[in-house]
Order: sequence, then structure tokens, then C-alpha cells
Amino acid sequence: MGRWEPDARGRLEKAALDLYGERGFENTTVAEIAARAGLTERTFFRHYSDKREVLFAGAGPLQELLVNSVAGAPDTATPIDAIAAGLRGAADLLQERREFAVQRYVVIAANPELQERELIKLATLASALAVALRRRGVEEPTASLAAEAGIAVFKVAFERWINDKDRRDLPRLIRESLEQLKDVTTGA
Amino acid sequence: MGRWEPDARGRLEKAALDLYGERGFENTTVAEIAARAGLTERTFFRHYSDKREVLFAGAGPLQELLVNSVAGAPDTATPIDAIAAGLRGAADLLQERREFAVQRYVVIAANPELQERELIKLATLASALAVALRRRGVEEPTASLAAEAGIAVFKVAFERWINDKDRRDLPRLIRESLEQLKDVTTGA
Repeated sequence: MGRWEPDARGRLEKAALDLYGERGFENTTVAEIAARAGLTERTFFRHYSDKREVLFAGAGPLQELLVNSVAGAPDTATPIDAIAAGLRGAADLLQERREFAVQRYVVIAANPELQERELIKLATLASALAVALRRRGVEEPTASLAAEAGIAVFKVAFERWINDKDRRDLPRLIRESLEQLKDVTTGA
Repeated sequence: MGRWEPDARGRLEKAALDLYGERGFENTTVAEIAARAGLTERTFFRHYSDKREVLFAGAGPLQELLVNSVAGAPDTATPIDAIAAGLRGAADLLQERREFAVQRYVVIAANPELQERELIKLATLASALAVALRRRGVEEPTASLAAEAGIAVFKVAFERWINDKDRRDLPRLIRESLEQLKDVTTGA
């Protein structure tokens, strides 16, 4: 490792997101990101494997948090309560990173290849949630249905959060969407 | 157009799916598909733009059927009832093509690029269903939640159908999954 670079990762992330927003993801190079952050390309590659990785590095920790929250829900929790616990954990994390989340969303929405990658991430999350529920003894197809429903709620609440002029927070929008999904499925 | 080739499209489809299953999607060429079907490459390209298209040509008609069934549901139908009507239409269509659906599923499951394409197809279906509900006067986020819930039910029921040793039919599995989703969201 080279000399100490305070918050190199945070600076690279900010530089990358700013540049993707200014000139588009396709038109940004790693050299430009490093220069904007006042760091070297070598430092960039110590933190990220490529420029796409800057947008998706959070997927692993997010999945871990979701799965751990589902696993840690009380034994008495129903499958949807366990999923709700997972979504709450994820929502708290994302709420703290709202500015990054909004910038990231805009960049991904502008690029079909990144959108595909985001869809794969969500499908992977749904599978991981179903596994976490089965480990709690939930049977199929209930486990998969609860997991897919949880991801559906997450997608819809996340989209509202990003576009919400009233700036309601994500944990609240997820709570609301879970209630609304219940109303939808019961035909209320 | 050349001479009359009875059911060229169906023969090409069968030849393609058989070959994808035997030697893998990646290792199959259009020339081989045409030869197996007893047709020319030129005939292949009159029906399909490339070998991937054989697997995804049904996506457009399926989406049309879903959207039309949602649009045609009685005015009194709740959002989830309208979605259920759409899923019933799609399920009837797929049930008639079970053998093709199973072969196609196995080919896609073996190839990450095809899986991505399938995820995109499902996300597109969800968006189209939400649009169809909004046209019925359903407000957001209810429209998106009902649409995403419908796709969740479809995914889970479809997977059960493909792997079901008892060979229960898809319309039935979709009805069951809709009921189970209701139980899940109400914590029953």
C-alpha cells in the first residue's frame, strides 16, 4: 500500500458518481475518476475492480444485512414479519446514504446494461431471502412468495423514495408499502 | 418468399430447442438448426432474427395477452382481480405449450446471459401490467404493487409447474399461489 490516503474509497465513490452524472457512465474513464478524486489509478484499483463496481459494491453488504435481519427475527415472527425486519434494516442503511442512492439511481436509469445488472441484483436478493426463510423452517412455496413479495415492496418503496418531493424516509415508505400490499392482495 | 414450407416456424422452434438441450445454447449454430429442421438458413432468418429470438419470440404475444386480459376485466374487479385475470390468460396459453416451456426453462437455466434476458422480460411485464392498471384508474403505488405481486406469483407458480411431479396445471398453481400470497401478507 502507498502513503495514507484519508477516505480514498469515499473520495473515489463521490468522484465517480459526480462524473457519471455529468458526462454519462459510458463516457467516464477510471483515469478521470482517479484524477477528480486527487488519487492515482492504482489506488482506484485497490478499492474497485472496475468502474461498474463503484455502483454495485454495496450489493454484498446489503444482502448480508437483509439475510441477517431475517435470520435474527424472533422465532414467533411470521414469514412476512421476518421479511419486514430485513427490509427495515436495509432501509435504515440506505436512508443514511440518500444522496448516493439518488445519484446512483439516475446513472443506472440512463444505461440499459446497468439496469440489467440491477435486476440481477434484485433477483439474487430474492433468492437469498427465500433461503433465509427456509432456514427458519418456512416451507415452499411460502418462502419464495414472501421473499418475492418483499422485493416487490422494496422496489416500489425505493422508487417512491427517490422521487418523493415530500422527502418521506425510506423506512416509512416501506412500512406503508407493506400495508398497501396487504390491502392489494386481500382486495381491500 | 420461397416455396411453401409447412409449419416452418414450428419445425425451426422444435429443432432449436432440441439442439440447445443436446449441446447447449452456445454451441448451437443457426446453420445446424436449419439443417435439423430440413430448411435453409434463409428460411430461419425469415422467422427469427437470431438464435436467441427462438426463445423469446413469445414474450410480445404473452405481454399483449396479459395486458388485454387486465384491460378486459370487469369494471368492478379489484386491482388484484384484474391481475389474476391476466395471469389466467397467460397460464392457459402456457399450459398448451408445456413441453416447449419445460425445454426452454432448462436451456435458460443453464445460461447466465439468457437468465438476464428472462429477468428483463419479467420486469418489462411488470411495468406493462402497472400501466394497464393505471389505465383502469388504479392509483400509484397500488398499481405497481399489484403488478409486482402478480409477477411474483407468476414466477413462483411457473417454477412449481415446471418442476411439479404431480403435473398439476399452471392455472391451478397460479390460483393457489395467489391465495398463498394473501395468507403471507396477512401473516396467516
